[in-house]
Amino acid sequence: MIKVGLTGMGYWGPNLARVINQHPGSEFSAACDLRPENLERITGQYPAVKGYSNFDEFLASDVEAVMIATPISTHYELAKRALLAGKHVFVEKPLAHSSALARDLTSIAAKQKKILFAGFTFIYSPPVIKVKELIDSGELGDLHYLSLSRVNLGLYQKDVDVVWDLAVHDISILLYWLGEMPFRGSSFGRACVQEAKRDVAFLWLEFPSGVVASNEVSWLSPQKMRRTCIVGSKRMVVYDDTEPVEKLKIYDRGVDFKLPSTFGEFQLSYRMGDMYAPHLENEEPLLKEMTHFLSSIETGTQPLTSGEFGTKVVEVLELLDRTAQAHQRAELDEVIAR
Amino acid sequence: MIKVGLTGMGYWGPNLARVINQHPGSEFSAACDLRPENLERITGQYPAVKGYSNFDEFLASDVEAVMIATPISTHYELAKRALLAGKHVFVEKPLAHSSALARDLTSIAAKQKKILFAGFTFIYSPPVIKVKELIDSGELGDLHYLSLSRVNLGLYQKDVDVVWDLAVHDISILLYWLGEMPFRGSSFGRACVQEAKRDVAFLWLEFPSGVVASNEVSWLSPQKMRRTCIVGSKRMVVYDDTEPVEKLKIYDRGVDFKLPSTFGEFQLSYRMGDMYAPHLENEEPLLKEMTHFLSSIETGTQPLTSGEFGTKVVEVLELLDRTAQAHQRAELDEVIAR
Amino acid sequence: MIKVGLTGMGYWGPNLARVINQHPGSEFSAACDLRPENLERITGQYPAVKGYSNFDEFLASDVEAVMIATPISTHYELAKRALLAGKHVFVEKPLAHSSALARDLTSIAAKQKKILFAGFTFIYSPPVIKVKELIDSGELGDLHYLSLSRVNLGLYQKDVDVVWDLAVHDISILLYWLGEMPFRGSSFGRACVQEAKRDVAFLWLEFPSGVVASNEVSWLSPQKMRRTCIVGSKRMVVYDDTEPVEKLKIYDRGVDFKLPSTFGEFQLSYRMGDMYAPHLENEEPLLKEMTHFLSSIETGTQPLTSGEFGTKVVEVLELLDRTAQAHQRAELDEVIAR
Amino acid sequence: MIKVGLTGMGYWGPNLARVINQHPGSEFSAACDLRPENLERITGQYPAVKGYSNFDEFLASDVEAVMIATPISTHYELAKRALLAGKHVFVEKPLAHSSALARDLTSIAAKQKKILFAGFTFIYSPPVIKVKELIDSGELGDLHYLSLSRVNLGLYQKDVDVVWDLAVHDISILLYWLGEMPFRGSSFGRACVQEAKRDVAFLWLEFPSGVVASNEVSWLSPQKMRRTCIVGSKRMVVYDDTEPVEKLKIYDRGVDFKLPSTFGEFQLSYRMGDMYAPHLENEEPLLKEMTHFLSSIETGTQPLTSGEFGTKVVEVLELLDRTAQAHQRAELDEVIAR
Repeated sequence: MIKVGLTGMGYWGPNLARVINQHPGSEFSAACDLRPENLERITGQYPAVKGYSNFDEFLASDVEAVMIATPISTHYELAKRALLAGKHVFVEKPLAHSSALARDLTSIAAKQKKILFAGFTFIYSPPVIKVKELIDSGELGDLHYLSLSRVNLGLYQKDVDVVWDLAVHDISILLYWLGEMPFRGSSFGRACVQEAKRDVAFLWLEFPSGVVASNEVSWLSPQKMRRTCIVGSKRMVVYDDTEPVEKLKIYDRGVDFKLPSTFGEFQLSYRMGDMYAPHLENEEPLLKEMTHFLSSIETGTQPLTSGEFGTKVVEVLELLDRTAQAHQRAELDEVIAR
Repeated sequence: MIKVGLTGMGYWGPNLARVINQHPGSEFSAACDLRPENLERITGQYPAVKGYSNFDEFLASDVEAVMIATPISTHYELAKRALLAGKHVFVEKPLAHSSALARDLTSIAAKQKKILFAGFTFIYSPPVIKVKELIDSGELGDLHYLSLSRVNLGLYQKDVDVVWDLAVHDISILLYWLGEMPFRGSSFGRACVQEAKRDVAFLWLEFPSGVVASNEVSWLSPQKMRRTCIVGSKRMVVYDDTEPVEKLKIYDRGVDFKLPSTFGEFQLSYRMGDMYAPHLENEEPLLKEMTHFLSSIETGTQPLTSGEFGTKVVEVLELLDRTAQAHQRAELDEVIAR
Repeated sequence: MIKVGLTGMGYWGPNLARVINQHPGSEFSAACDLRPENLERITGQYPAVKGYSNFDEFLASDVEAVMIATPISTHYELAKRALLAGKHVFVEKPLAHSSALARDLTSIAAKQKKILFAGFTFIYSPPVIKVKELIDSGELGDLHYLSLSRVNLGLYQKDVDVVWDLAVHDISILLYWLGEMPFRGSSFGRACVQEAKRDVAFLWLEFPSGVVASNEVSWLSPQKMRRTCIVGSKRMVVYDDTEPVEKLKIYDRGVDFKLPSTFGEFQLSYRMGDMYAPHLENEEPLLKEMTHFLSSIETGTQPLTSGEFGTKVVEVLELLDRTAQAHQRAELDEVIAR
Repeated sequence: MIKVGLTGMGYWGPNLARVINQHPGSEFSAACDLRPENLERITGQYPAVKGYSNFDEFLASDVEAVMIATPISTHYELAKRALLAGKHVFVEKPLAHSSALARDLTSIAAKQKKILFAGFTFIYSPPVIKVKELIDSGELGDLHYLSLSRVNLGLYQKDVDVVWDLAVHDISILLYWLGEMPFRGSSFGRACVQEAKRDVAFLWLEFPSGVVASNEVSWLSPQKMRRTCIVGSKRMVVYDDTEPVEKLKIYDRGVDFKLPSTFGEFQLSYRMGDMYAPHLENEEPLLKEMTHFLSSIETGTQPLTSGEFGTKVVEVLELLDRTAQAHQRAELDEVIAR
């Protein structure tokens, strides 16, 4: 049993608290929050947990691992101090508010020989894992493109825009599935309700292997969508996370190109085969993620969602932010005379 | 009764033939096609129709109006000859393969005092008309953004890519709804199955009023989608054309921004109200379009989908093509060091 | 090419006309209707067809087969006269308004050595055929029960109630799938809008093999449903005919009973496996039905939907009508004191 | 704050525990279960709760109200002892395993001047309440019929069949909505997996006002359905409890009967109007039910789901059981000669 402490008891923290308490491999022994009411709620619900309002005192306790669910802008500072205090660290996504800082955390962890774990829960969810298997086994053939939609009404974040809040999930999934970094990206969107902070965005990414991806994210959409379409040369997959069951549908569909015969025109043939929805296990992703964090600590091996992985995700976010600015500058040149 | 002739009896032409024959205001009197088997099929089905394999002889008949459903690259030449022969002309979308040619057709029609009608059937469909009313009446409030998806498996076109084949519909709908031209656009996509001809594309458009739009089009998608989301400050609409009924859902949902109080933080309030699906009349869009074409001829007034309207749609297609090329050139500069 | 004549050009007749005309094995040569406007519409659309307003003159023509799409109460009389005139006969469902009359038609056809074909189009539709294969191959295991819903708003019939209009389809499908007659049935319903004619009904059937079936039919339902659930011990199937694709979903799900161990309690284990939607061919059922009618004539073999089959369907309808009356009589006895 | 005790910590009890603990009007002070492991789980999670393995000692504690979530066959005995010990009592549905016992409990509660509350949670859920309002306000017009489906795979109960487990919900909803008892019922079903205990059933009920209802319940269905269709003369409603939002859809649809004109035939007109999905509040039904239980205790007024109400539900279950037996006896008489 590894002694685990948690800091940040706002929107997401209570979910981590539940899992630390529930997991047979961890002992929930300390919690830290600046707001007394948050702290009391947790220590009331988990009487064995010692509460701290001071982060240094919290670090001075006997916890071996620290989980951080505070606002993004504080991730770097808190994670750094925890690593330097000799703790293993789990940081909620994104790892830090810049890739330079994320990279710095990664090297501190390496020097300290501690596990740095980036909390990308979707990487531990059964449908996302199943798609990874389908891609790696070659069952989908060559990947053509992916289209990902993650839209709903709210919840507006105070410190980041919709790209850093929602697209961060899709980017982590893409990097996990494809195993490569995009070499080019582009973003487009609008700040509709608040000034300067985009609540709707459309993103494009191009990868060295040729595959391209589009990602639509919005806090301002009447219907909730969590829909990802993965188009390969052999199979196509629709992953709909709003479905209670049958989240994955695998289609034996495609278009095959036949070289022109001696007489002439090329031919396309349409393949319209069966659809298949594999049964997926029901285990909670958050619990699987916790298991992976704890076993990384025990075995001393890098987790799937390592500091390096978390740094790459932030690099892609920064790439997309740069192109958003580039678009602003191009405005005058591209105006069309009508 | 206006005597109407039809040229082009391939994939779409037979639908126009049915409507010319069925409409009480038109008399289907002549048909022209280079392929004898196409011509025979039509004259067999409509014995009163005279068949021509020569376009000049077809134009020399007593038809007053000519409907053109031939390949896009022939639109300009055939429409021009028909207008110069004194016929009213209906040209299937897009009007021509360049905006310069489309503009030329428009001015020829003006000089000849004949109607030039661009065949954008969706503009005559009940849900598209209803959304136009909702926008113009102010019921949706200020428009924030639109997201349009038009994807399915096939049907690959020989002469154009997926943008000219499918996005042309969405662009025509956008121009009709918004009543303004985009001042900037961008496109991104991939030619997955054939070389050089994109079968999947993601488009962005920005309009002077501030509204932005995204459009996803694909010939290579396992599920058919015809989904358009229109987000306004007062109401949001989802228009799903694959639904047999309830194609339009109007949501009383939104996020309202409240100015900060004297003590500080701004506040957002989420509005989660009722959904409402208006009953829409069942009339066939193609029949309504035909009625509008015939009444434009009779009254001598410009149709909704005039030559000018059709020219603007081609201008937007060209804008999107230019940005696709711009992206190609930018490739080396934007590579990210990893 | 078999010369085919058609009588009855009301709601359904024009569909048969189209198929007779379109099918390569039939020549549409004669049509008969009492209403001159119906007759003119058909002879106008199919100029090669000779029109008759007198049924005897129609039978005196050189047609070899007669298709009957007139009101149900006329089926027996017209079919009998056609058979006695030496024609093969196709009668729209149900075969006649009583099983005695249907049986009589069947024996007349046998004596005349002519084909009597009952027009149950669903028996020729790809999903219904596929389910038959799944049942017969044993892939579903032992059948437990079936639940069939066929509801929508309208179309009220003038001469029959909702059971004879809609349940007739489900009964024909059940008899085809199960290959056995129910030994008991029950029905329940209400005449909501008109007096005496039920517009909603719930039917139950029990079969000798043990399988039971429920059927809900309604002309008075806000949403259209065409949903059939087939529950077997090995597999379960949902057949939804309103789906444009994936009409059949086959589930590897079930509950297995394990005998009690020495220590006691029985155990149930739940099987939650994959779902699979086979691709189904796209051929039009009506066209397949026509092919089967024509090949029955040519080979002199009994069709799937023979006179005998059509008689059995009417027997089941009569059984259900009897139980509806039985219910009425039982009313007073079963009243519960409250 | 009312001191509340809970007995029965199996499948459902923990949900009641959570609500007793969470509700501001109740203090969770005692728990009773025969299985030590169940008891320890609850007292571990709620350290302030005192655990009892003896029901008499539990009743001797200072709890003012007792909530019972034990197997159905124990409801009567435990509720009676609790009432006689002077406690207010909440019994999970159904109130008892016979209407005579349920009636006895009701009169004991009356004599003891204690609240007897039958735990029908759906009666406190926002969509069920909204439909009640629609019916009572006359917005739906005269009710024609209701069709209710409640099917899924599992969960098989040990002590009751699917009617007593699932239909009990629908019967409680029907009695609440209609405010009248059925005067006749019928049931049909099959015990597919286990002997003698039905896992699928189809029920019919007829009410004095003329309205009829059908209810399909199954533990052996591949897809989960929680669908209720309410057909009135003015409006129709579909209540789908599996929908995450828009559980209620209200249709302005119907068929209107027009008296025959002087010239003859009656006419039906179809009304196809708008659909409307009211926004429903999000409050948890279990929490609302708890609030109602506590306020009934405080005010001394009968709850909506009183002992009398719970007795009526059991009466309907018994009526349906009787008709299932009646069917068995009728078997030989109704056999059809084939």
